[in-house]
Amino acid sequence: MKIEAVDFFYVAMPQITTEGDGSQDALLVRVSAGGFTGWGECEASPLASIAAYVAPMSHGACRPVKVSVEGQELSSPKDIERIAHTIAWDSMDLLQAPHTWSGIEMALWDILGKARGEPVWKLLGYRKAAKKLPYASVLFGDTPQDTLNHAKKIRAANYRAAKFGWGPIGRGSVKDDADQFAAAREGLGAEGVLLVDTGQIWGEDVDAAAARLPALREAKAHWLEEPFHGSAYEAYAALAAQSGSLRLAGGEAAHNVFMARHTIDYGKVGFIQIDCGRIGGIGPAKSIADYAVARGVTYVNHTFTSHLALSASLQPYAGLAEHVICEYPAAPKQLAIDIAANPILRESSGEISVPDRPGLGIDVNGAVLEKYLVDVNITVKGVPLFASKHFV
Amino acid sequence: MKIEAVDFFYVAMPQITTEGDGSQDALLVRVSAGGFTGWGECEASPLASIAAYVAPMSHGACRPVKVSVEGQELSSPKDIERIAHTIAWDSMDLLQAPHTWSGIEMALWDILGKARGEPVWKLLGYRKAAKKLPYASVLFGDTPQDTLNHAKKIRAANYRAAKFGWGPIGRGSVKDDADQFAAAREGLGAEGVLLVDTGQIWGEDVDAAAARLPALREAKAHWLEEPFHGSAYEAYAALAAQSGSLRLAGGEAAHNVFMARHTIDYGKVGFIQIDCGRIGGIGPAKSIADYAVARGVTYVNHTFTSHLALSASLQPYAGLAEHVICEYPAAPKQLAIDIAANPILRESSGEISVPDRPGLGIDVNGAVLEKYLVDVNITVKGVPLFASKHFV
Repeated sequence: MKIEAVDFFYVAMPQITTEGDGSQDALLVRVSAGGFTGWGECEASPLASIAAYVAPMSHGACRPVKVSVEGQELSSPKDIERIAHTIAWDSMDLLQAPHTWSGIEMALWDILGKARGEPVWKLLGYRKAAKKLPYASVLFGDTPQDTLNHAKKIRAANYRAAKFGWGPIGRGSVKDDADQFAAAREGLGAEGVLLVDTGQIWGEDVDAAAARLPALREAKAHWLEEPFHGSAYEAYAALAAQSGSLRLAGGEAAHNVFMARHTIDYGKVGFIQIDCGRIGGIGPAKSIADYAVARGVTYVNHTFTSHLALSASLQPYAGLAEHVICEYPAAPKQLAIDIAANPILRESSGEISVPDRPGLGIDVNGAVLEKYLVDVNITVKGVPLFASKHFV
Repeated sequence: MKIEAVDFFYVAMPQITTEGDGSQDALLVRVSAGGFTGWGECEASPLASIAAYVAPMSHGACRPVKVSVEGQELSSPKDIERIAHTIAWDSMDLLQAPHTWSGIEMALWDILGKARGEPVWKLLGYRKAAKKLPYASVLFGDTPQDTLNHAKKIRAANYRAAKFGWGPIGRGSVKDDADQFAAAREGLGAEGVLLVDTGQIWGEDVDAAAARLPALREAKAHWLEEPFHGSAYEAYAALAAQSGSLRLAGGEAAHNVFMARHTIDYGKVGFIQIDCGRIGGIGPAKSIADYAVARGVTYVNHTFTSHLALSASLQPYAGLAEHVICEYPAAPKQLAIDIAANPILRESSGEISVPDRPGLGIDVNGAVLEKYLVDVNITVKGVPLFASKHFV
């Protein structure tokens, strides 16, 4: 079959705030091929990713993503790999291209799975999908008391793991942060898995991060995520050398497989977090899952948007039974909830199952999403390069 | 003074071809502050970079570049650094942001230099600007005979150095490539500095690249540029271990200082090539120049567009007398020629001087460029986010 159409739908909540909540908008991609429809989602800044799809060519190594996708043959995973390779070459100088391609790539896997009547994880070579333990991904409260209350609610909601991130951490004293970590632990109870995400707050200041290690150990944190800039491998490695059993997590910003590998090899993280909406989709993410296994590193998805993105992000490590933790958007905006007509719900055990349906196994109900559509028009030299379509 | 206005001008040749010639279009940035006007240029894909400037916010860590720039105080280099830091944080998840910011950053240095009556390289701490030896940057011919003719012309045009790139290299046999390298050497004569750029053709296949080393040594190539994907540090290091006196060059795709440092530290290149239109402008490029000096690596600019971009790219290493080679667009499109009213011309010695005028020292004549203007309109939710302006 051939790729016949690629449509982008920019959807957003009526108001976007500066909170670190990635579920406030989404760029959905719908691909049509051979009578099948596939869906994918690009991470963040819908307008920039749309522009990378339609932008006029600058030169041979800076072509828009569009020209490498439309009309291409799509019969097997090899075709997806071939298109990815073309884009890496022909859109080499278009920085945004990997984010745009990521959503398309997911949709191509969705189509292949639907055409073969198999879930994507089977196409990736897994025979069985293991259950995953979702962690509630939330922000630290403004005060330790807020964080305590938050953590108690999460525990009451039957989450066995939770990640607290961003907020005031790193902006006050070491003692302030220690109080926050302790509050999160207290609220989750002794058995809960506590993950901490500091959102790059220390840049590359190893000492500042190291000063928080005793309190993180005291709170029995399972990982410390993104203490530094995503590319500050030396800082990661220096902190990892001091952090003992508390392992570091990072990698979400990787927009190619090399960056993810380097986060493992040079950054010495214990958990590699891959966002399929950034790294170029499911194929490169699977190669990083394999790489992680070979190096004794735990693979984890990075997902802060819809259950469509969640399903895509679970496929690359669906069959890795020992890599159990998964990021799960615990309190997304209504938009993100509405994107998946059949969300991936937590079971009574607190776990989730990767969909065992053809493709990504998520139904996107366009009629429901119509109200979130953001109308975009891009005209260059009087020619409309992009005009938002309706879902139906 | 405050940053009062930031205007983008997308200019292009009437026809854009797939040749690897980056001078076919440009995104110029004009910034106004305190009665001064500064100019900068973003590398490649003008539409995507404009979108990253005006895109609606996705969340707190994915804000458009615009909100971190307009209205900001601009009195010293510290202000530029502060704005860069804000963007790194608030546009963390907007992949295209560094390319957009790069052009703005140049313009801010241009303004500071004009306000203080000093060239930018003096603001960067250099007392004196050393002359640079420009190399003609051209593509390999389709046949060795074409390359030979090309090289002869370059020599006749008084270039003492030339870089041949891309074209058929790596697409045929080892012998085919050897013939090309030999032709380039023959045409340049025994004394000419021969540089070879293979445009990532070998991905991460070290053996394929290594097979070309004998012929490159035979042709006395001074460097081998981008044999691999820009992030394939392990492949670079493995080849560097075999290449002896022929050193590797790379780094042009770095969109932050970490990536450039890693190309040096992990990739073991002998020449670090920085594009100021990608890495975030002149400030981060200067920090890489310092880093290169400390590590015995030679800094080189990467410039394949206008003399505005050329001037910006020379500033970070203007004072490094031992880092003499510089990329010089030898046969740019008329557009790129027309961007700079006062180009940086080669002197009788074949060398060039970094402008010794306030700011970047390049006059942009808008009236001449008017005919290249590409009209762009971006509307979101019915609100015009971007509409091309005329220069005058």
